Amino acid sequence: MSISGSLGSGSVGSLGYVESQRVVLATQDDPLHLRGGGRLDHVEVVYETYGDLSPARDNVVFVCHALTGNAHAAGLHLGSKKRGWWDNLIGPGKPVDTDRYFVVSANLLGGCSGTTGPLSTDPATGAPYCLDFPLLHMTDLVAAHRRLVADLGVERLHAAVGGSLGGMQVLQWAIDDPDAIDRAVVVAASSRLTPENIAFSTVGREAIMSDPDFCNGRYVEQDVFPWRGQKVARMMAHINYVSAESLETKFGRRRTSQGDDWRLDADFEVEHYLQHQGKVFLDRFDALSYLYLTRLLDYFDPFADPGTAEALRRARTRFQVTSFDSDWRFDSAQSAAMATALRDLGVDVDLAEIASPFGHDSFLLQPRGYHERIAAFLD
Amino acid sequence: MSISGSLGSGSVGSLGYVESQRVVLATQDDPLHLRGGGRLDHVEVVYETYGDLSPARDNVVFVCHALTGNAHAAGLHLGSKKRGWWDNLIGPGKPVDTDRYFVVSANLLGGCSGTTGPLSTDPATGAPYCLDFPLLHMTDLVAAHRRLVADLGVERLHAAVGGSLGGMQVLQWAIDDPDAIDRAVVVAASSRLTPENIAFSTVGREAIMSDPDFCNGRYVEQDVFPWRGQKVARMMAHINYVSAESLETKFGRRRTSQGDDWRLDADFEVEHYLQHQGKVFLDRFDALSYLYLTRLLDYFDPFADPGTAEALRRARTRFQVTSFDSDWRFDSAQSAAMATALRDLGVDVDLAEIASPFGHDSFLLQPRGYHERIAAFLD
Repeated sequence: MSISGSLGSGSVGSLGYVESQRVVLATQDDPLHLRGGGRLDHVEVVYETYGDLSPARDNVVFVCHALTGNAHAAGLHLGSKKRGWWDNLIGPGKPVDTDRYFVVSANLLGGCSGTTGPLSTDPATGAPYCLDFPLLHMTDLVAAHRRLVADLGVERLHAAVGGSLGGMQVLQWAIDDPDAIDRAVVVAASSRLTPENIAFSTVGREAIMSDPDFCNGRYVEQDVFPWRGQKVARMMAHINYVSAESLETKFGRRRTSQGDDWRLDADFEVEHYLQHQGKVFLDRFDALSYLYLTRLLDYFDPFADPGTAEALRRARTRFQVTSFDSDWRFDSAQSAAMATALRDLGVDVDLAEIASPFGHDSFLLQPRGYHERIAAFLD
Repeated sequence: MSISGSLGSGSVGSLGYVESQRVVLATQDDPLHLRGGGRLDHVEVVYETYGDLSPARDNVVFVCHALTGNAHAAGLHLGSKKRGWWDNLIGPGKPVDTDRYFVVSANLLGGCSGTTGPLSTDPATGAPYCLDFPLLHMTDLVAAHRRLVADLGVERLHAAVGGSLGGMQVLQWAIDDPDAIDRAVVVAASSRLTPENIAFSTVGREAIMSDPDFCNGRYVEQDVFPWRGQKVARMMAHINYVSAESLETKFGRRRTSQGDDWRLDADFEVEHYLQHQGKVFLDRFDALSYLYLTRLLDYFDPFADPGTAEALRRARTRFQVTSFDSDWRFDSAQSAAMATALRDLGVDVDLAEIASPFGHDSFLLQPRGYHERIAAFLD
């Protein structure tokens, strides 16, 4: 919720201080039944809101974060100088304009940033779930957030906006509730991971699960952490998030050592960069959440589900699907396939590829035409 | 050395049983001085030969193996049904025709398949070198093999043929001894790794070196092995060796489980495949050799060396440089850059890109036009 206000309607500014909120959305009396057959008897969701809900409750833009994101999408937390991860998109006068829209950003089920996940306490045992936490489907993540929207007294979203996993959540949401979303903004996503995507995904999980400190998932009880494996997983994944071109531009072959003073450990600037990316990730993300969320991406394949076609045929949702030409994690062919599958079911889709040298991470940046495109679609 | 003969001149057959040989090529009296400043007082090289050396000793084709290859390039070892790694290229009537050429295939310095490497005994201590083994440059690998050629009484090679790291060894050889090679066949290689190449390389080393069983490189003395890290490194590297298209064709999204019976461990066929690749690699390659050989690839940058231009200007070597259109590890742009750098120095280069869906590993396969191209160039 925005505490300090905007710079006034019409000018572009940034949100001031914001706070996270927490709400209980499932209880033993009203558990969350999961697609895989299990259920969760206690679900809390952490979220933030920016801007004001209109009296008609018709100006809600729901923001869906990516794999390792969190609810803090914009503004500042007290005591921190780090702005939310989509602060360049969300704020007064920005494309997701908090002078006009009531923005809701919630942490995913299965995550590790406040919403119920594998490290939460299992009410049945009083201990952390760890690997007893049920495997989730994208539809379970959507279900938790649908409960949040209902709890806020909102019937229909003006828009749902998401990049990467967030975009896939938006797609699943439109399938699961064809009346819920007016405008679906899907950026740098896929409706079906490729075998290469799954290959990278499984190597990251192998690194984590084979770390001796993984302790069969109960590391938190042993007061250890599979940091070696998680660091390797993140370093590798980070290569997926950028492009060969951006690494060339940013680092080239520059190195610390001189001449023939070679070393086995980090020397080239790109190595120091990946070391840094691997290390900072350890402080902000949990290994089990990483396993659960990467795995549900692998299985995500909504157009293979029997009910999808019927649901989308009656969906009252317009789609905007955007890819980036240098994104080789979820490339333009994957966005185009998603758009084709939607159009084949009569859904209105605005598909475009944006030129950007920054690879998959482009969705967090501002390549020319990208934010303008989202602003126009929301308007 | 071929024990059983060919099927006779003119027909295409395979080599029969072959044996590896071992030769001492450096001693305390005649050590191998390394580019990094160190020296090796004892160097053994393991090699195989196929075909017969001509009386004029002018029919030698030297085969250079890739990162994890070995001297066993063709034919069969007694008691094994597994043919050499380049058996489809080398043999009677094949492109590297053992009815005409005397083929020499040697294991690399720094490797783990017979030639001196990090696990060899340090004569100064009587214990394995481990991380006291000096870091090597490509020129050191070439130096060991140049000694082998001299030991065989050969002054000039009809050709040197190599794929991937092997191709880079061929390039370095032509620079280090401009009179040594008549025809240089460089396949799926690079004269300068990209930052993305180095990024993947460093993640593999991180996996190995952060494995608790790496024991600061002295795992062999502890009777352990950093198998977790090496498995992860190999699984990841294997993704580099194939193409997204070949994974799609070979595996698609087929999986073992049915419906919503998801699991965290391997389920999709591509995951089982990578698990298999990771496991079999543990039996056949050493972690320290992996570190040393991947690292020298990172530093390999011959056209940045001051002496390279002068050496190549007087080189009596013709080059054939071949890339594959789906190879994203060492892509066609890297081969084209190498060819341009050579031509700028007046070297004759025949450059071509071969269409093949199999990625980097295409150099071990037979996409249309590839073997024909090598045969024509050698002829």
